[in-house]
Amino acid sequence: MPIEIVHTRAELQSAISRHLAGKDRRGAEGTPSLGLVPTMGALHDGHRRLAEAAVEGNDVVVASIFVNPLQFGDPVDLERYPRTLQADAALLEKAGVDVVFAPDLEEMYPGGDPLVRVTAGPLASAWEGASRPGHFDGVCTVVAKLLHLALPGSAAGAPTAFRAYFGQKDAQQVAIVRRMVKDLNFPVEIVSVPIVRAEDGLALSSRNQFLSAADREAALVLSRALRLVEERAAAHEPLMPDDAVALIESQPGVQLDYFDVVDTDTLEPLAFNCRETPFTGEALAIVAAKVGPVRLIDNMPLRAR
Amino acid sequence: MPIEIVHTRAELQSAISRHLAGKDRRGAEGTPSLGLVPTMGALHDGHRRLAEAAVEGNDVVVASIFVNPLQFGDPVDLERYPRTLQADAALLEKAGVDVVFAPDLEEMYPGGDPLVRVTAGPLASAWEGASRPGHFDGVCTVVAKLLHLALPGSAAGAPTAFRAYFGQKDAQQVAIVRRMVKDLNFPVEIVSVPIVRAEDGLALSSRNQFLSAADREAALVLSRALRLVEERAAAHEPLMPDDAVALIESQPGVQLDYFDVVDTDTLEPLAFNCRETPFTGEALAIVAAKVGPVRLIDNMPLRAR
Repeated sequence: MPIEIVHTRAELQSAISRHLAGKDRRGAEGTPSLGLVPTMGALHDGHRRLAEAAVEGNDVVVASIFVNPLQFGDPVDLERYPRTLQADAALLEKAGVDVVFAPDLEEMYPGGDPLVRVTAGPLASAWEGASRPGHFDGVCTVVAKLLHLALPGSAAGAPTAFRAYFGQKDAQQVAIVRRMVKDLNFPVEIVSVPIVRAEDGLALSSRNQFLSAADREAALVLSRALRLVEERAAAHEPLMPDDAVALIESQPGVQLDYFDVVDTDTLEPLAFNCRETPFTGEALAIVAAKVGPVRLIDNMPLRAR
Repeated sequence: MPIEIVHTRAELQSAISRHLAGKDRRGAEGTPSLGLVPTMGALHDGHRRLAEAAVEGNDVVVASIFVNPLQFGDPVDLERYPRTLQADAALLEKAGVDVVFAPDLEEMYPGGDPLVRVTAGPLASAWEGASRPGHFDGVCTVVAKLLHLALPGSAAGAPTAFRAYFGQKDAQQVAIVRRMVKDLNFPVEIVSVPIVRAEDGLALSSRNQFLSAADREAALVLSRALRLVEERAAAHEPLMPDDAVALIESQPGVQLDYFDVVDTDTLEPLAFNCRETPFTGEALAIVAAKVGPVRLIDNMPLRAR
């Protein structure tokens, strides 16, 4: 079936109801399940994986495309953010998505900016939040809206499963959205989908297109540094993240912002001494750096084998 | 049927599903409707009216009783807030409520205070918000949670109507909750229920019990002052709120905090000159004052006949 593109909240809700009603019932309780993939468009293979995961796991899948001004600090950044609806819809259709919700500004924020908002709190104070004040409040507010707009119903006694998909690339966003769902009791399951990497190891990002060939070569040091601690974690060795930092700092053209090993849920730096104590359990290595004109982020889950 | 008292989120959701499934279908789309009455307990006849309005308008009604620490600035105030679950449940049962949700602190805020919250924004800066910093953020956060926890499902294509009931006595709370629902796209209809007054005109409040006989007599000046501008509004006369202020200030034992005529939705003072221009349209007169040991609030809708 060709993908259905809708632009208003009313059209979205009617499309969701129609698609759910038309599906075989394979949800946990006998009702069809719904997957939501919130995006800002400019989709690449990383988003394709998100959409595919949603399609694999649900009867009906909606992807939203909305460039949310609330999460941009810089109006120039907002202005030049690529808008590529037709290409995006083609990618989503190929992945098996049923409905694209592409609202305009007035549809999402009728009458102007929202007054009542969701605030991300202390989880937004470090890492990306430190260099992007207000960013995660804007993310929480728009995600709350999208979750409410897509919320499927359920027959009495038979809840429809509802899942929303986020890329693990934005690890802090995933942690904050998970916490929002827990703290505010949203009736949705958050699914994070692993980072998709190019063959050379670079994490896919819509920003990669702004890297020169030399920048791109330099940027590979980020995933190399992450792999360094990942291998030590797997081998139960002390992580010695200073080595990863030194590796990045030795790379011309790369300006390190942060590299650290943190708790996956709280994003707080690990309490144990990474220099001397053999690694056990699980954690997340995170990195951000400026490469040429572009700020890049990347991360890797650490797990002792 | 005797009222059902539940304490956990899981029990609440199962009770709602069970009650909805057991009801005749009289909702707009052929499915039963659900009404939610969020309270902090210590119920009086004002709450009884809220519950009755919910019962009149819906197939199934849930009332919640939870003293929300997030909306108290003063720990002493929180500590001495009356907890009267058995009497409250009896009142709600008599009003026809089906289910009481009475969670404890750990059920509502597992693991401690929420990190991600809803913030009320500029609507909370004046009036009650001015003397209770953070109060309306706490209200928004707990109401968001309760709305999510009670959210009924719907058969695909047939949304269950969901309504939440708030007393007009807390006019600023009503305005902020309405704005939250609009700004964050909650799938719920907010219904505000008119103030219930004692025969002498005093608006019912759980705080009235702390008034001495003399305080109570003095407190009547508040509703008299509101009626003064209400009558002028009805008669298309200039409101001249200074007269109402003078009336209150002439009453010994009453310390006026504010008296103003505002827009019902935005709570912003009316732009037109209340002293000279004949009143047209609609507005809200609001008042707050300390009477003896108690801070009282009251309000009255103004409408030109």
